[in-house]
Amino acid sequence: MKVKIKTALISVSDKSNLKSLIKNLSKYKIKIISSGGTYKKIRSYGYNCIDISEFTGLPELLSGRVKTLHPKIHSGILSDRRNKIHMGQLKKQNFEEIDLVVCNFYPFENILKTANKHKKILENIDIGGPTMVRGAAKNYKDVTVITSYKNYEDLFKELKLNNGSTSMMFRKHMSEKAFMTTASYDGAIFNYFKRLSKNKYPEKYITVSNKVEELRYGENPHQTAAIYSLKEGQKIEQLHGKKLSYNNYNDIFSSLLISKSLPKNQGTVIVKHANPCGVSISKDRIMSFKLALNCDPKSAFGGIVSCNFKINNKIAKEINKIYFEIIIANGFETKALKILKRRKNLRIIDSTKVKIEEFSNITTNFNNLLIQSSDLKNINLKDFRVVSKAKPSKKVMKNLIFAFNICRFVKSNAIVISRNFSTVGIGSGQASRVGSCEIAINKMKSQKAFKSLKDELYAASDAFFPFTDGIEKLVLSGVKAIVQPSGSINDKDIIKFANKMGIVLVFSKTRHFKH
Amino acid sequence: MKVKIKTALISVSDKSNLKSLIKNLSKYKIKIISSGGTYKKIRSYGYNCIDISEFTGLPELLSGRVKTLHPKIHSGILSDRRNKIHMGQLKKQNFEEIDLVVCNFYPFENILKTANKHKKILENIDIGGPTMVRGAAKNYKDVTVITSYKNYEDLFKELKLNNGSTSMMFRKHMSEKAFMTTASYDGAIFNYFKRLSKNKYPEKYITVSNKVEELRYGENPHQTAAIYSLKEGQKIEQLHGKKLSYNNYNDIFSSLLISKSLPKNQGTVIVKHANPCGVSISKDRIMSFKLALNCDPKSAFGGIVSCNFKINNKIAKEINKIYFEIIIANGFETKALKILKRRKNLRIIDSTKVKIEEFSNITTNFNNLLIQSSDLKNINLKDFRVVSKAKPSKKVMKNLIFAFNICRFVKSNAIVISRNFSTVGIGSGQASRVGSCEIAINKMKSQKAFKSLKDELYAASDAFFPFTDGIEKLVLSGVKAIVQPSGSINDKDIIKFANKMGIVLVFSKTRHFKH
Repeated sequence: MKVKIKTALISVSDKSNLKSLIKNLSKYKIKIISSGGTYKKIRSYGYNCIDISEFTGLPELLSGRVKTLHPKIHSGILSDRRNKIHMGQLKKQNFEEIDLVVCNFYPFENILKTANKHKKILENIDIGGPTMVRGAAKNYKDVTVITSYKNYEDLFKELKLNNGSTSMMFRKHMSEKAFMTTASYDGAIFNYFKRLSKNKYPEKYITVSNKVEELRYGENPHQTAAIYSLKEGQKIEQLHGKKLSYNNYNDIFSSLLISKSLPKNQGTVIVKHANPCGVSISKDRIMSFKLALNCDPKSAFGGIVSCNFKINNKIAKEINKIYFEIIIANGFETKALKILKRRKNLRIIDSTKVKIEEFSNITTNFNNLLIQSSDLKNINLKDFRVVSKAKPSKKVMKNLIFAFNICRFVKSNAIVISRNFSTVGIGSGQASRVGSCEIAINKMKSQKAFKSLKDELYAASDAFFPFTDGIEKLVLSGVKAIVQPSGSINDKDIIKFANKMGIVLVFSKTRHFKH
Repeated sequence: MKVKIKTALISVSDKSNLKSLIKNLSKYKIKIISSGGTYKKIRSYGYNCIDISEFTGLPELLSGRVKTLHPKIHSGILSDRRNKIHMGQLKKQNFEEIDLVVCNFYPFENILKTANKHKKILENIDIGGPTMVRGAAKNYKDVTVITSYKNYEDLFKELKLNNGSTSMMFRKHMSEKAFMTTASYDGAIFNYFKRLSKNKYPEKYITVSNKVEELRYGENPHQTAAIYSLKEGQKIEQLHGKKLSYNNYNDIFSSLLISKSLPKNQGTVIVKHANPCGVSISKDRIMSFKLALNCDPKSAFGGIVSCNFKINNKIAKEINKIYFEIIIANGFETKALKILKRRKNLRIIDSTKVKIEEFSNITTNFNNLLIQSSDLKNINLKDFRVVSKAKPSKKVMKNLIFAFNICRFVKSNAIVISRNFSTVGIGSGQASRVGSCEIAINKMKSQKAFKSLKDELYAASDAFFPFTDGIEKLVLSGVKAIVQPSGSINDKDIIKFANKMGIVLVFSKTRHFKH
């Protein structure tokens, strides 16, 4: 059903394209009601416009808090045009129909950015605007509602096509957008209050996020997918290559969590299927890359490399020898970028702007949300206790911390074997801990350089060893020091076993399951 | 700052405890304004109450759509009591302060349940209520807002403590709840419109969920956590045992996804660390359990059993021989429940009411949301193509479908070896496919009964084999038929290899990565 627009109410905080809006509405001789800044602007363009106070007969009250909250406005918006009683009441009260509401609110996120005083923030919460928008959206059978200047062009097309009217489909679509706008506006306000009161898990959990892009598909081609952002400024900056896929994003996030946890400007992480398959830190950055690659070159094929340093010429050449899907770094030297760009499809990501910060981790299943705080706390020496007779040197302790930190990012059960701040064997995703030990050991032994290894080997486990079997396998493979969370009823036996074998055993207070 | 309550505006859809509210307000001689059903109810209790039309001097308009949308109401709510101009305007207009707004809306979820006509649903969208609530919440420095009868007792305590006043802390807390209420109300409306227009990935993605419970901790003790529900009626019913933990919920969802995908009343799934370590279907239900357990009894220890049938006496006894953390089933016979309850801590879950249905799968990372449709589509024969010279019998095909279906729920890379509709080896979470093959084969070979296996062995892979190495290992271990998605540049070589070895090879159109 087409509805002719005769009267429009305009109240916009964002005045982009306002002139073009008024010009277009004037083509159809649409009467315009407005107030405050919008009114002044419209008059400055040389168009006619009725001030809202003149329209309602009531002066603007309470520093502008009460302008549109008037029955003449809301009866004009909310009346059912096919209801004779409604129409009779309008006539009796000398009210008139309002057919178009154009209204946008000052974005609450911007308020938070610019106003740091709570009082100022409160003042900026719009009451009249959302009421008009909600009313018009509810009554979309008769009323058109526009909540963003981005939809002005759509409105112009619609008016042109229908000679000053709008179609039901258009009005319904705009009504959906209107409720999206009011819901996200109040969602942002609620989340602000929630943050102030530190109410982490309120009765209702409301997330409002902005679409970054729709993805070609999800984990698999028969699944649809999209990526949204809860917060600005955490965007991945892609410099080159094919469009990022769902699995790309998933791998990128996994690898960034690890590389951002490593000492600055020296860490390389290689990720495949969201699990690390090689991690190394070294001030010699080429070595950092080479050692990360050495851990499991077979798995690295087609994987992701994430360096927490700037990539130069030399490293780029080294990287280009292998087929990777994605290269992430804290910047690229011009020459390096040129070299990497030779591979047409290679996705190149600059992660300089991505910051590691506390966030809530959400997963859904069966329409349930499991929410938890993230496991991003830095590994702390205070959480460790040496339980073996053999005592670790500072160097050994540092190596154990390196291995234990990587463990946090490997899917459980996780076993990491390292030497000289590089992983040499990673065992992941096994239901039994000894199974993960075997995988880590096999990976280590399959390395060409394995037999010539003369450095000490270290191992870390994400949770306690339930029996001595896993530790035994590690020690027999050459591991000299192990870190693990305590908590098993067999802890004593495990300490006894470590002492028998003469290795260093360190217990951590924190466990690091990841599923 | 304490604020004395002199005038209250009450408009409630849910009239629970209304009498008690009025009785308490009357103790402090609070003037009450109300309308419609609330007004009638208050009068029926024998209390004084001013009708809103009398208060504003305007009759109720448009079948009740415009009652409270009046400057007298909103000036009363929004005026800053410390602002002389505001107070002067109030006096001049003959308006008066409103200090308490008690208002709840008919829940939109309930509207959707009871009204199936879009028109009826639209009619029920409240415009006046949210406006008063938002106004009062914004102006909480002066006004108290109550949006649920569940907070009446808090209000009574507050009034008693402060002799008819409320404290700033209380008002701010109620204001937070008010914005939670309006945001979730509009969130529900938006999601309804979104569903209607099939707009799966709109500009903004808004989730509104209700707290089920806070959890003791997250995946690890140093992480906080809670579980929320996006939809009613999908709750897990716990019959016995310790409180469910984050990891319990995660495992329960993983296991239910699998057991609900199996033919009804014959499937058993054992899960550990969110990965299946044994799955079987058999009309002989004890066999179904025993064969699922046989796949990897070591990993099953401390795991979850999920049966998609009712558990009887005999099965309960069998289950009780092993230490499990959780037993899930579609009901329990009385005797069986009694037997299982002997283990004090064992969590017993009835999953009869949990329905498998299409849902959006959300994961967050770095304040980004990755959203995808779930991979729940039933495996379809049409998606398969036999590519080997050897052709599968119906029985072989059914076995392949069984194995391929399990693959979907195993973390990538996933290899499942099965015989007679039971898994005998599951390889998961490896960066290389051949690695997962090796794990699956080793698991199979470690079974006591392995050497006496005379049935045919089948294997499934969640994604294509990049080389023949993985397939070769499977065939050399006795596998006679394999299903895998196609898509490798080496597909032809793989077919050739299958023909050379004389096995059945089936290609699937769908891939099933899971990370």
